[in-house]
Amino acid sequence: MINAVGREIPEKIGNYVVKPYAGPREAIEAEQPVCSRRKPSKRAAAENKLMPDLKSAIQACGLKDGMTISFHHSFREGDKIIVQVLSCIKELGIKGLRFAPSAVVNIKNPSIVDFVKDGTINRIQASGICGELGDAVVDGLELSEPVILRPHGARPHAIETGDLSIDVAFIGASAADDFGNCTGQIGPNACGSLGYSFIDSTNAENVVVITDNIVPFPCVPTSISQMYVDYVVKVDEIGDPKKIGAGATRMTKNPRDLLIAQRCADIMAASRLFKDGYSFQTGAGAIPVACTNYLADYTEQAGIQASFALGGMTGAIVEMHKRGLLRSMLCSQSFDAVAARAIAEYPNIVEIDNSMYANMFNKSCALDKLNFGVLGALEVDTDFNINILTGSSGEMMGGLGGGPDVADGADISIVTLPIIRGRIPSVVDKVFTCCTPGSSVAVVVTEAGIALNPKHKNYEMLKEDLDAAGIKTVSIEYLRDMAYSLTGVPKPVETTDKITCIVEYRDGTVIDVIRQIKRD
Amino acid sequence: MINAVGREIPEKIGNYVVKPYAGPREAIEAEQPVCSRRKPSKRAAAENKLMPDLKSAIQACGLKDGMTISFHHSFREGDKIIVQVLSCIKELGIKGLRFAPSAVVNIKNPSIVDFVKDGTINRIQASGICGELGDAVVDGLELSEPVILRPHGARPHAIETGDLSIDVAFIGASAADDFGNCTGQIGPNACGSLGYSFIDSTNAENVVVITDNIVPFPCVPTSISQMYVDYVVKVDEIGDPKKIGAGATRMTKNPRDLLIAQRCADIMAASRLFKDGYSFQTGAGAIPVACTNYLADYTEQAGIQASFALGGMTGAIVEMHKRGLLRSMLCSQSFDAVAARAIAEYPNIVEIDNSMYANMFNKSCALDKLNFGVLGALEVDTDFNINILTGSSGEMMGGLGGGPDVADGADISIVTLPIIRGRIPSVVDKVFTCCTPGSSVAVVVTEAGIALNPKHKNYEMLKEDLDAAGIKTVSIEYLRDMAYSLTGVPKPVETTDKITCIVEYRDGTVIDVIRQIKRD
Repeated sequence: MINAVGREIPEKIGNYVVKPYAGPREAIEAEQPVCSRRKPSKRAAAENKLMPDLKSAIQACGLKDGMTISFHHSFREGDKIIVQVLSCIKELGIKGLRFAPSAVVNIKNPSIVDFVKDGTINRIQASGICGELGDAVVDGLELSEPVILRPHGARPHAIETGDLSIDVAFIGASAADDFGNCTGQIGPNACGSLGYSFIDSTNAENVVVITDNIVPFPCVPTSISQMYVDYVVKVDEIGDPKKIGAGATRMTKNPRDLLIAQRCADIMAASRLFKDGYSFQTGAGAIPVACTNYLADYTEQAGIQASFALGGMTGAIVEMHKRGLLRSMLCSQSFDAVAARAIAEYPNIVEIDNSMYANMFNKSCALDKLNFGVLGALEVDTDFNINILTGSSGEMMGGLGGGPDVADGADISIVTLPIIRGRIPSVVDKVFTCCTPGSSVAVVVTEAGIALNPKHKNYEMLKEDLDAAGIKTVSIEYLRDMAYSLTGVPKPVETTDKITCIVEYRDGTVIDVIRQIKRD
Repeated sequence: MINAVGREIPEKIGNYVVKPYAGPREAIEAEQPVCSRRKPSKRAAAENKLMPDLKSAIQACGLKDGMTISFHHSFREGDKIIVQVLSCIKELGIKGLRFAPSAVVNIKNPSIVDFVKDGTINRIQASGICGELGDAVVDGLELSEPVILRPHGARPHAIETGDLSIDVAFIGASAADDFGNCTGQIGPNACGSLGYSFIDSTNAENVVVITDNIVPFPCVPTSISQMYVDYVVKVDEIGDPKKIGAGATRMTKNPRDLLIAQRCADIMAASRLFKDGYSFQTGAGAIPVACTNYLADYTEQAGIQASFALGGMTGAIVEMHKRGLLRSMLCSQSFDAVAARAIAEYPNIVEIDNSMYANMFNKSCALDKLNFGVLGALEVDTDFNINILTGSSGEMMGGLGGGPDVADGADISIVTLPIIRGRIPSVVDKVFTCCTPGSSVAVVVTEAGIALNPKHKNYEMLKEDLDAAGIKTVSIEYLRDMAYSLTGVPKPVETTDKITCIVEYRDGTVIDVIRQIKRD
């Protein structure tokens, strides 16, 4: 069958029954109460939760072959928890696990691939699997079912419906007390918001907090409460906060990126929604950080204050808050060490549940209130569909993150990307992997021009505002032609019939699949 | 049948199947996953949650005859929400509701009795029903089943098991935004912690936030997230914070109360558990406030710092925190206006879920870490059983509150009371209503002496410590004899066979029942 973004998808993929993407908010499921696997405990009050080592905690949880384990990815490339836990599980001889972290960031020596090859893991669900694992998957790594990739907003719903039922959640925390109250906001290896793990803590059957910093009871601030925690384990090191992100508010000096960032800020400042109390999400990376700084200046010049920034936070956004240009920050993750530590320091920087951030099946999520969302992309096509997963030869270059959620939730969603990267065009006829439907993308900003999506719900408003501000726009086809004129028309990536990844949309439907890359 | 505190209780009371109290931690139920009635929502993102009035919100929730509604009691006698909501429900002609607030505090003109008599309410569950309602109940007010009285720790478990399944939770908040993020910490009518409502918000099918103070999105601090809220209603006034409690840190001048408070602090300071990092709960009222002040002085003299105070907070405890004698406060309710506003002001004063505070079926609750718990009582008997509900002629004088939970959780539980009140003895042969089993009471402190419970788990330790400090003790029988010598032996309260209230213990078993009072 063909879904609403024109992708051909089988009705069933193994045991996975496909609900095809049917358009914005068309396929919202029947209501059913949320389910949790958390159990009232028989634990005696005085019983100690502090386990001598990871192995004891894993055994105490009763982890068995075939079960599901979860992690957060708040340490990104600095994570030292996942490999420690998987190594213990491997030593215990437990096999065939479903590995369901919020995301897999490039983990090496050993990599997750090694734990797949030795049979410890045979299924994977995450928002992204970039790095060695992703590349191995699209090249046909043997798993017992395709990887399910879900944007941040879809994961909590999958957990609450029972589609993703977690046996043991392992939660890394930079401070924890012996009863399991924990946080990522303080301690030598602070990673900031634990927003991804809230849903795991309340819904998993077993919850293990892993820390390198036991603090006296009670751990304050408390991000996750002891009431959800079964065991606490102290390890030598949980992660390296220097590798959380690029760090701080340093501006890029790349003139192309600066140009794109400036144009992105120009668009926001030109919008009628840019007024006292406006809200935004910019995200991580060179362009977003630069864009945040330009936006701060615009805000100061206009003599207004933004009401909230949402999602992943950077030092640049903290700086805007410190300058009084931004009243609050709803922080579901921390992209750098400055942002990680700021939550404990400023009362209006609030750690929020990732489900509160992006889950469209909640009684509402914060994205429903967002004016401007700035998004990165690997590719955009002439239908404004966005690819944030796969690179030019099909390799796994990114994760879904909250991109599809933000595009759908924000009044004005702005995709920023250069029209070419190296010799590869970024604006193309048809993206290799459709992650975000074009209908939810308002505008594409490149160094070669700005293209408005005439099919976006707020097109008329935005067009009028940009015209009034004298901001010129071009067609998306113009940008594609420019790109192709520099690179030539790209050769399509050839694939086999084997589906390696299922790409879900925020509503749980299938927006695309990734087939195994055919290598020469 | 006879339960473990010697109370005669039928095996069934109407449809209610009695699980008799079987002793401390003897009757813990089989494990089963927690259940929630919260449903993923079909609400469109842009749909407004702000309803024009209470009636519209009640109708939007689909409230029907026979359903269950809930409230918190954080405004205590200053509450202006419950009557407003019940009046609307009455006007809508909805009948036969189960009324399940965290507690009923004396509400007058109209009182809850009026809503029972007109058929709006026909069942009641709460931690206490003191005031007109309680008196009417023990005098035989017609309800379709006995009132179920549960201590604070038992209510969340009853909700999570589905025994108390809530159709519509009405949550009063002193600040809320139009998407339902709300708090009791700020605004003109701040009531402080919304700790009682957390469980309602996550488990009720419908949640209505009622405020007199709509703030710009996002409401910061956020105590309850929009993700759990269906509707928001603005009313003229939600409550009168001056009536939350006696207010501030004013010391009583009653020499008897000061003596009891001083002795209570003496006992804590004499204990080997009184060392750096100790923890306590003192509670509200004249004796607890005075006791907190004495304890603060002892702490200063010893050059130590308490790690946390737990439960209901007063200005006296805030003062101790400000003096640097107390590192943190885990606040499930705020007993006065000072404590209500302090949460937003001091980062180490933390608003906690009442379930985190006291629910023994959690993976742990904060009470499990408590060293000293100070409790009030209406009566204590020679088995150390405590009555915190009924007065000398059977009238409803108090609520269970967290008393039974604290007694069980604390290492040293200290009951403070005068041996007589007016011409009525407080130390008796047998309490009229057993709320807290004597086995969980370590010591009774009166103006006439201190009695240790030889059957308490920590008797030996405490006896040794008091002896070492030269603190004299007497037997509980001595205190009873003293009381009786002043008042004469009290005439037992006569009752009919009709059971008006079922008194549950924190583990969900039945510790006692209250029968209808026989009036002349």
